[in-house]
Amino acid sequence: MINFDIKEEDGRARNGCIEVNGKKALTPLFMPVATRGSLRTLSNEEAIEMGYEAIIANAYHLLMKPGLEVIKKGGGIHRYINWPSIIFTDSGGFQMIRAGFDQDISLEGVNFKSETDGKVIKMTPEENINLQKDLGADISMCLDFCPPHPADKDTLQRSVDITSLWAQRCKDVGHNTFCISQGGIDDQLRARSCRELVEIGFDGYAIGGLSIGEPKKEMYRMLDIADEVYPKDKPRYIMGLGSPVDILESVSRGIDIFDSAYPTRNARHGTILTSQGRLSIENGSLKDDHGPLDGSCRCPACENYSRSYINHLFRSNELSGLRLATIHNLSFMYRLMEDSRTAIKEGRFESYKESFVNDYK
Amino acid sequence: MINFDIKEEDGRARNGCIEVNGKKALTPLFMPVATRGSLRTLSNEEAIEMGYEAIIANAYHLLMKPGLEVIKKGGGIHRYINWPSIIFTDSGGFQMIRAGFDQDISLEGVNFKSETDGKVIKMTPEENINLQKDLGADISMCLDFCPPHPADKDTLQRSVDITSLWAQRCKDVGHNTFCISQGGIDDQLRARSCRELVEIGFDGYAIGGLSIGEPKKEMYRMLDIADEVYPKDKPRYIMGLGSPVDILESVSRGIDIFDSAYPTRNARHGTILTSQGRLSIENGSLKDDHGPLDGSCRCPACENYSRSYINHLFRSNELSGLRLATIHNLSFMYRLMEDSRTAIKEGRFESYKESFVNDYK
Repeated sequence: MINFDIKEEDGRARNGCIEVNGKKALTPLFMPVATRGSLRTLSNEEAIEMGYEAIIANAYHLLMKPGLEVIKKGGGIHRYINWPSIIFTDSGGFQMIRAGFDQDISLEGVNFKSETDGKVIKMTPEENINLQKDLGADISMCLDFCPPHPADKDTLQRSVDITSLWAQRCKDVGHNTFCISQGGIDDQLRARSCRELVEIGFDGYAIGGLSIGEPKKEMYRMLDIADEVYPKDKPRYIMGLGSPVDILESVSRGIDIFDSAYPTRNARHGTILTSQGRLSIENGSLKDDHGPLDGSCRCPACENYSRSYINHLFRSNELSGLRLATIHNLSFMYRLMEDSRTAIKEGRFESYKESFVNDYK
Repeated sequence: MINFDIKEEDGRARNGCIEVNGKKALTPLFMPVATRGSLRTLSNEEAIEMGYEAIIANAYHLLMKPGLEVIKKGGGIHRYINWPSIIFTDSGGFQMIRAGFDQDISLEGVNFKSETDGKVIKMTPEENINLQKDLGADISMCLDFCPPHPADKDTLQRSVDITSLWAQRCKDVGHNTFCISQGGIDDQLRARSCRELVEIGFDGYAIGGLSIGEPKKEMYRMLDIADEVYPKDKPRYIMGLGSPVDILESVSRGIDIFDSAYPTRNARHGTILTSQGRLSIENGSLKDDHGPLDGSCRCPACENYSRSYINHLFRSNELSGLRLATIHNLSFMYRLMEDSRTAIKEGRFESYKESFVNDYK
């Protein structure tokens, strides 16, 4: 059972608390992406120490490596990866149907070639939810069919049809499951997808197939449609969206949950998130800048090290550079969500958002 | 001023405490190598938390990147790299004269080509110690001339001559400086090198030009010579030696200080140090091993994660694998030194060493 309490509302933005298997997370919630059960340059307990209450892993990737049986024998995903708090898993549908996999989608499910031994694996929606359940996820995501952007109307229509059909079968498995709407940026199809999912009825409602190359304006319009159709009392989750400004814009449109590799991937590429916007740490001029990455940040990277030192680490290919940048970017995102929740509580989310967007060049 | 107190002796092994600039470190002491001011996959404060009291950085590498002026403006090396405890710096002589640098050694000093802009840099012994002093090192190492192994007698002779000549000039600068003997594995030359350095008189005595490919037996014989010639009341340091067994053998020959990239470099290559010997973490069979890296270890990697999980991280190219392996290997080395000190205190170092070597296949 997933419980969701909305504690405060401010316009369409809301403060809530999601509770599952005795674990809680406050919303608006940002989840770091631990595709293979790891945050790359950090130990998982370090993200817990930052305050993170949930992460998302990828069932497909974990099935490929190390495999379901290994994780089961290791005591389930929480124990295996040392993450005592909430774990979402993504179905991996997005990965299975991307280029590079010989894929074949039918009403029945998806066929894909294993990346480890090339064998064709058939995955039905039921098998996929059972996989997520068996891994030990607290919350599983429906297997959906997410076509690339741009897609023609026929493809989008087929993706909505199949996604709804699969969603019903996912629900019937009886796990804690969120559905995912499709429909690209087509108003009618997106609305139909959302409506069909609401008719089935879920514990949480995600929005898929966005942030994959479409214009921002179109993406925001889809969020407005989802906000309209999806029940107000359930958590809403836009998948794969992670830039600070996009997140605040989505919160103001009634979205509660986010996940993205944005802060961690950017960190590894030397892009630092600061209250003044993105900073490229490898920039030569930073060699002489002995201030912190972000003057308003209290994370260990900002408290203990200078821009000059971290610039030096990147330019010397020292892995600790990637690590300090990741610590900072994840701390930055955590604070963004915390500040958002405070602003909602105090009824000033819109002005908080405007002021943030204004400073964040 | 460097102060060194010997607290306990057990055969030729000794427990001591080295004190410099108000900071202390217990010996036998192992120093992790932070060539460029970083421990690669860790934040520096993590090594402090493990108990480490000293590291060694490399003056030559830091001069190349980020440069002396940058580190001076950053408040000196301790503040720049966030290492409040003891910092040794190596002269970089070893790096300057290795293949790849156009080098030219004269009585005056060494000429080498900068790796950043190709300019020829002339470095005298005086300039080198001043560089280490200006970086803010607590203890600097003499510029020495370390020929590759094997070297002919003429080269070894010249290296001893020049090393002694330079040592005098290093001492005259007036910093806290350790000398370094040369002489390869030639008994007479090694003894002469040690004697000439003792005549000059230093706060600490290192042994260089070993662990570079010569047979172990020869190396140990050189340690015996150094132990004989070097003053008993000063700290002795063998440079670049890092395997657990070599360290224990050296402690039993009166050596106090060690530095090596051995634990960190091995960790990044998936080699785990355990009380039963070296373990290759990428070994396929470890996928099903849900025990810790080392059952007798209490480090965060062993407390929180399994061999199976860390095997998974390595096989998935996740940087957190390198990190957890590094945390473990550095913890292992710290414990090795701590156990050695306890054994010396209790007068049972030889039996401790034998039992360790016996278990460590």
